[in-house]
Amino acid sequence: MNGFRIFVDFAVTPEVLELLQAGTCGHQLVFPKTPVSSVLARAERDPQFTMVDIAFGQPEPGAIAEAGQLKWIHISTSGITRYDNPQFRALMAERKIPVTNSASVYNEACAVHALSFMLAQARKLPQALRCRTGNGSKAWLEIRGSSGTLRGETVLILGYGAIGKRLAELLRPFDMNMMAYRRKPRGDEGVPVITEEQLAEALAQADHIVNILPDSAATRHFFDAARFAMIKPGAIFYNIGRGTTVNQDALLEALRSGHFAAAWLDVTEPEPLPPEHPLRAEPNCFITPHVAGGHAGETKTLVRHFLKNFDRFVRGEPLLDRVM
Amino acid sequence: MNGFRIFVDFAVTPEVLELLQAGTCGHQLVFPKTPVSSVLARAERDPQFTMVDIAFGQPEPGAIAEAGQLKWIHISTSGITRYDNPQFRALMAERKIPVTNSASVYNEACAVHALSFMLAQARKLPQALRCRTGNGSKAWLEIRGSSGTLRGETVLILGYGAIGKRLAELLRPFDMNMMAYRRKPRGDEGVPVITEEQLAEALAQADHIVNILPDSAATRHFFDAARFAMIKPGAIFYNIGRGTTVNQDALLEALRSGHFAAAWLDVTEPEPLPPEHPLRAEPNCFITPHVAGGHAGETKTLVRHFLKNFDRFVRGEPLLDRVM
Repeated sequence: MNGFRIFVDFAVTPEVLELLQAGTCGHQLVFPKTPVSSVLARAERDPQFTMVDIAFGQPEPGAIAEAGQLKWIHISTSGITRYDNPQFRALMAERKIPVTNSASVYNEACAVHALSFMLAQARKLPQALRCRTGNGSKAWLEIRGSSGTLRGETVLILGYGAIGKRLAELLRPFDMNMMAYRRKPRGDEGVPVITEEQLAEALAQADHIVNILPDSAATRHFFDAARFAMIKPGAIFYNIGRGTTVNQDALLEALRSGHFAAAWLDVTEPEPLPPEHPLRAEPNCFITPHVAGGHAGETKTLVRHFLKNFDRFVRGEPLLDRVM
Repeated sequence: MNGFRIFVDFAVTPEVLELLQAGTCGHQLVFPKTPVSSVLARAERDPQFTMVDIAFGQPEPGAIAEAGQLKWIHISTSGITRYDNPQFRALMAERKIPVTNSASVYNEACAVHALSFMLAQARKLPQALRCRTGNGSKAWLEIRGSSGTLRGETVLILGYGAIGKRLAELLRPFDMNMMAYRRKPRGDEGVPVITEEQLAEALAQADHIVNILPDSAATRHFFDAARFAMIKPGAIFYNIGRGTTVNQDALLEALRSGHFAAAWLDVTEPEPLPPEHPLRAEPNCFITPHVAGGHAGETKTLVRHFLKNFDRFVRGEPLLDRVM
């Protein structure tokens, strides 16, 4: 055997290239003529792709169908929306191509990002960082008297995969009541898991609704006006999953009416949210531009995770983060 | 006995008054003609004060000297700067007046506030919340690539009382290296405690310097240019102790030169820091207006803590948070 041809579709620094070369020694790395600017971007079709054995990045489903040699696809993101449909799943099953994603790469940063949202809200950081008056002023009394510590409050985490589980670990010292919503409970969640039938009740109890649902046909506008209506007045809504899971008109209304105390969003639809979008003007809506999974040295973490899986692939061992 | 006369120097709502009356039933509450606006404010002298047995609030040291009946002083803050001097300590010792403070009331909120600073910095929240561009833009790449998770980083907590200890508990799931600096180690810190001789080395190692030092003659400008020079380049400086412990000119220089990546301050000197103060113009200096200890229902927490101590006082049991 001449080794595997591995297609890597994103731009790499010399340092990352060295890491990739060292970890795939004896195999062949193939790069596109126009690498994508980031792991979230869609790659252009490249003629070399038809000849490769392994795809690492965001390969185009159409190109995958035409790549007859393909033996394994490793997606460079946690989200797999582009591939998550019955036709593609059927094709992968038929051709026996395992598909893995990079969930492990982003879990930690996403969980920390979610907690940073919860604490910035609890400590009223946006308001406090703007406040120029001190002790006894109206603004000061308002900030000081509305700040909190999360203690004794209830959090509901929706979509309880690796990110949710890690968030629960980070929240453990805060003495909160935690609940998780997961379609298929496994029993190893470490926090009470609620089912679909209990969801309305949980939404009515929670002070903090943390949405980490992935994008799929089943989760599209999961949070619509009807579901928002079930949420406790004064609750805070966080989204670090996917923007498509929320009906943004309904969210806007929940904020304008004062039903929600605040919303913290790392994901929106579209991204970036246009500057003139009304959610941008809401004083209690806080938006970061899909950076929750980001961290210094991210590409290296991504490549190391791929290489760990590459070793397993070469040895015929079960792959990490397998999604198909 | 006719019960104790208890002087309460701050304004109370009907609800808080009810709580105080219920908890001191059989004793007499005395309020000033002009109650202070907040627990951090200095009270005006009141003629009734000379006749009271117990002072709850921020009694003036001069007034205390003239109050011949005084048997116990319960300070409504954590900081006791106004009282922390040899003369006052000698007077209290001579007159056998125990002095307690309200440290337990503010610990939790202060620790959570400190962590909110650390996470807002790690996730670049100030920059990310302002960013209007998305995936692949220069600003986006900068935020995403400079964000972190605290994992593997080193934090040095200076002033390791109840707040520091609680912060260490909250930080435990983050997999950081923790160090505490404390003048008199007790052995129950739960994290490695460094001594004065090891301080320079610790400052050179830490990525996060969390200053929770109280105000005293010994800590005044504890952080001056010489001590700042020992700190690792790129470190982040947090202050949730007292503004007086920092030479702000030296801090400004450390920020302007790029020596510190950022500073997060809940306390300054003076407070509020004037709008034209140069620290306000530093892009990596983030200031909240002394709200770290604040929390909804704060006065109730304060009164409940006093009442717990009042029960102990009446029964002759050891008092909580005794500082003299």
